[in-house]
Amino acid sequence: MRSQTDSAGGLRHLISLDGLTREAITSILDRAESYRRFPGQPAYEGRELAGVTLANLFFEPSTRTRASFDLASRRLGAHVLNLEMQSSSRVKGETMLDTIYTLEAMNTDIFVIRDSEAGMPEFLIDHVAPHVSVISAGEAHVSHPTQGLLDVLTIRAHRRRFAGLKVAIVGDIANSRVARSNLWGLKKLGAEVILVGPPTLLPRAFESLGARCVHDFDSIVSQVDVINMLRVQFERIRTSQFPSVREFTRLFGLTTERFARCKKDVFVMHPGPMNRGIEIGSNIADGPNSGILTQVTNGLAVRMAVLYLVSNATAETQRR
Amino acid sequence: MRSQTDSAGGLRHLISLDGLTREAITSILDRAESYRRFPGQPAYEGRELAGVTLANLFFEPSTRTRASFDLASRRLGAHVLNLEMQSSSRVKGETMLDTIYTLEAMNTDIFVIRDSEAGMPEFLIDHVAPHVSVISAGEAHVSHPTQGLLDVLTIRAHRRRFAGLKVAIVGDIANSRVARSNLWGLKKLGAEVILVGPPTLLPRAFESLGARCVHDFDSIVSQVDVINMLRVQFERIRTSQFPSVREFTRLFGLTTERFARCKKDVFVMHPGPMNRGIEIGSNIADGPNSGILTQVTNGLAVRMAVLYLVSNATAETQRR
Amino acid sequence: MRSQTDSAGGLRHLISLDGLTREAITSILDRAESYRRFPGQPAYEGRELAGVTLANLFFEPSTRTRASFDLASRRLGAHVLNLEMQSSSRVKGETMLDTIYTLEAMNTDIFVIRDSEAGMPEFLIDHVAPHVSVISAGEAHVSHPTQGLLDVLTIRAHRRRFAGLKVAIVGDIANSRVARSNLWGLKKLGAEVILVGPPTLLPRAFESLGARCVHDFDSIVSQVDVINMLRVQFERIRTSQFPSVREFTRLFGLTTERFARCKKDVFVMHPGPMNRGIEIGSNIADGPNSGILTQVTNGLAVRMAVLYLVSNATAETQRR
Repeated sequence: MRSQTDSAGGLRHLISLDGLTREAITSILDRAESYRRFPGQPAYEGRELAGVTLANLFFEPSTRTRASFDLASRRLGAHVLNLEMQSSSRVKGETMLDTIYTLEAMNTDIFVIRDSEAGMPEFLIDHVAPHVSVISAGEAHVSHPTQGLLDVLTIRAHRRRFAGLKVAIVGDIANSRVARSNLWGLKKLGAEVILVGPPTLLPRAFESLGARCVHDFDSIVSQVDVINMLRVQFERIRTSQFPSVREFTRLFGLTTERFARCKKDVFVMHPGPMNRGIEIGSNIADGPNSGILTQVTNGLAVRMAVLYLVSNATAETQRR
Repeated sequence: MRSQTDSAGGLRHLISLDGLTREAITSILDRAESYRRFPGQPAYEGRELAGVTLANLFFEPSTRTRASFDLASRRLGAHVLNLEMQSSSRVKGETMLDTIYTLEAMNTDIFVIRDSEAGMPEFLIDHVAPHVSVISAGEAHVSHPTQGLLDVLTIRAHRRRFAGLKVAIVGDIANSRVARSNLWGLKKLGAEVILVGPPTLLPRAFESLGARCVHDFDSIVSQVDVINMLRVQFERIRTSQFPSVREFTRLFGLTTERFARCKKDVFVMHPGPMNRGIEIGSNIADGPNSGILTQVTNGLAVRMAVLYLVSNATAETQRR
Repeated sequence: MRSQTDSAGGLRHLISLDGLTREAITSILDRAESYRRFPGQPAYEGRELAGVTLANLFFEPSTRTRASFDLASRRLGAHVLNLEMQSSSRVKGETMLDTIYTLEAMNTDIFVIRDSEAGMPEFLIDHVAPHVSVISAGEAHVSHPTQGLLDVLTIRAHRRRFAGLKVAIVGDIANSRVARSNLWGLKKLGAEVILVGPPTLLPRAFESLGARCVHDFDSIVSQVDVINMLRVQFERIRTSQFPSVREFTRLFGLTTERFARCKKDVFVMHPGPMNRGIEIGSNIADGPNSGILTQVTNGLAVRMAVLYLVSNATAETQRR
C-alpha cells in the first residue's frame, strides 16, 4: 500500500489512524479547531477548496456521515458529487476502477468511500492518480478514521491532556470500526484504553493492540474518565455472539444505576445513531456529562480539516 | 407550542398561517414581490443566506415543492441538504429528534419539513434550539402555509385588493391542507371565502372558520371572482367519500360548460399537479384566465421571502 | 420542429448533430478546448452561467453522463436540479409538459433530457418558452449529440485533420445512438466512416447516411486510423439479433489478436462503460493507443461548451 503521507509529512490519504504519527494527528486536530463552529454560531465558510471536486462513494447507507462530508466540502468551496453505488460485490473491483478513472478524467480530486466490506480504500489508494486523494468514511469493521479523530478531538477539547486519562470503550468491540480507530488514536496520543465487552464480542487478540480487555463493565466503571459507548449494530451481529438485548443492557449498558457509580465528571460519548435504552439511557445521553452532540460538531470540523490537508498536500505535489 | 413570531414581530418559524397577523402576512408578500422574477427574466441571485444551512426533510414525495425550496435556498446563497427520510411512523418521533439534534450540531439553521402525518412541525418547534427555524412544506391535511401565501400573493398581484373579493375553493376540502391555508390567509386579508364540495368532503365544521359552505357549485359559479380548484387527491380519499370520478367532474369540475357561466374576468387557480380533465379542463388550465403558472413563480418567491425573514429573525436573536 | 440554431447561427438547442453545420460543430469544439483541463490540472471554474438554472431530467439511469452535465453546469456557476423522473410512458407526454412548464415558472433556463424512448427532446423543443434551451443527453437509439461531439473532439485533438481519416465504428450499430451521432459528426467534418457489425445489427439502410457498411471486421481492421468500439447493450438487444457473447467477441471484439493486425498508431475509443473482455480487451482499453479516458475529459469540456453557447444565445434572444 502507498503511504497515507507524502515525503514532507503532508496528509495524502486517510484510511486508517494506524499509520499516522502523533504529530500528523495533532495537526489535523489543530486545524479542525480552527474550523469548528458551535450551533448558534455562523458556520465557517471558506474558499480553501475552490476548484476542488469531491466524489462521495457510499456503498453503505449513511445519513449523518454523508451529510457531514457533504457540508464539510461545500463550506470550503468544493463541488460534491453524491453517487449512489451499486454494491454487488463480485464485480465491484473492476467496475469500481472504471468508475474511479472516469471520475478522475472529470477532474475529481478526492474520493470519499464508505463500504461494508473491507479492502476497497486500500485498493483505491494503490490505483488512483498521484494527485488524487482517498478518504475512508468507514470500512467494514476495520477502520473509521474520521470518527477516531473526532473522538480524540472531543476528548482533547474537554480534558486538555491524554496522559493519565483512562478511556473505556464499551460494547461490541469485535464488529466495531469505531473501537479500532479510537484505540489507535488514543494510544498515539498517550491515553490508557480499556476495552469492555462480553468474551464473544471482545477477543483477546485486542490486547496485542495495547489495550486492556475487560469483560466485567462494573469492575472498572468507577475508575474511568471517559466512557465511549458503542452502538449495538444489530445488522452486523450474529445471534450466537449476542444472547439477548435485555441481557446486554443489564451487563454492558450505561444505565442510570451504572452511571451513578461513575466518577462525577465522567465524560460520556457515543458515535451515534444511538439505540436509546439499549446501550445508553436517554437521561445520560441528554445529560450534562454527555459529549455526544459535541462529537457531531467536531466530526464536521475534523472532516473539513482532513479535506483541507489532503488537497493542500495535493497542490504541493502538483507544484513539484 | 412556541410562537411563530418573536417578541419584535419577526418571523421565527412558519407552520400555519392561522397564527400570523395580517401585517406579518403582508410583509412576507411584499418581500416575495421583490424576489419574484418571471420566466425569461434572469433569476434573482443574492447572498442574503450566505453561511446558512437548510435541511429539506421530506417524508412525503414531492418534486415541485422540494425543487422550489431547494432553488429558493440556493438563489439566496444557502447550502441545502436534501435528506431522504424514513417514514416508519412508530419510531419517527424519537429518531427524528436525534436526527434534528445531529443536524443542528452540524450548524443547520433551518429545517423544512413535509409529512403526510400531522404534528411533526409543531413537535419540532418545541424542540429545536432557539436560533433554529422550522418551516412546514405541507403537513397532512392540516396546513401548507407557503401554498397559502403563494395563493394570496397571486390573487393580490392580480386583483390588488381583497375587500369585496369572492373566492371559491372547490373540491375535496376535508382532506386539503391547501384549502385550510388559503382560508386562513384570505380571511386575514379580508376576502370572502366560499368552500365548495360534496357533503362528504365538506363538513359543516368549516363554517366555524368563517367560510360559507356550498354543496352546489353551480349555485355560486357565476358570482365569484376567483376559483381555486383543488387537486383530487386519490391517494388520500376513502372510496366512501367519493362516489366516482365522472360524477365528481360533472358536479365539481371546472369544465368548459361550467366555465362559460363564470364572470368574464374570473381568475382560475390550481395548486398542481393537475388532474387534467378531472377537476379542471385543459383548455381552462392553459387559457387566458389561468394563473396556475404564476402561482408556481410566486411560490418560489414566497419561499425566498420566508427563508430570508426567518434567517433574519434568527440573526437578530443571536445578536441579542 | 423548431431549429436548433437561431437566425444568427447561435446554438439554441442540441438534440441531434444531424442539423448542425460544420461551422457550428467547429465552434463548439473550439470552445470545449478552452474549457478542457486534464486530470492533475485544476478544473476550470467560471461564472459564465451564474444565475442560470439547469434541470437534469433523466428517465434512464446514468452515472457518468449525469455527473458530467452536473459538473459542467456547476463549474460554470449554474444551479442544477437533478430530478428523478417517473418513466411510465403512457402518461409521460402530458405530465412531462406540466413538469416542464412548472420548472420554467421557477426560472429554469436549460433542460437536459435523457430518455430510453424516442421523441421527447423534439417534443420539448416545440413546447418550451422561447428563452429556454433543450439538450439531449441520449435519446433511445436515435441520438446522443454530446457523445458525438466529444468523440470528434477527441479525434481532432489526436489527429488534427479529418480529411483522409478512416474511422471504424464497430458493434451493435442498429441500437446505437452513439454510432448515429458519431456518423453525423464525422461526415460533417470530412472523415470516412466505416460501420462494422453483423447483418442483424447493421442494416443496409445505414449506407444511405453516407457510411460504408462492413460485416467482416477483419477485412478492414488493418486499414483504419480510428476504431470506436461500441458498448454491447445487453439491455436493448433482442436475442434473435445476437447469437452468443462468445461468438460476438470472436467476430467483432477488439481482442489482442485482432489489435495486432491494426496500424501501429491506431486510435482506440469506447463511449463507456466498457464490457471488458467482450467488445474490448482490457490490455487494449488501458494501453497506449487508447483514448478512452480522454473521451471522458473531452465530454465534460464539450458539455461546458454547449451549455455556454445555448445560454449565450438565450441571452442574445432576451436582449433583442
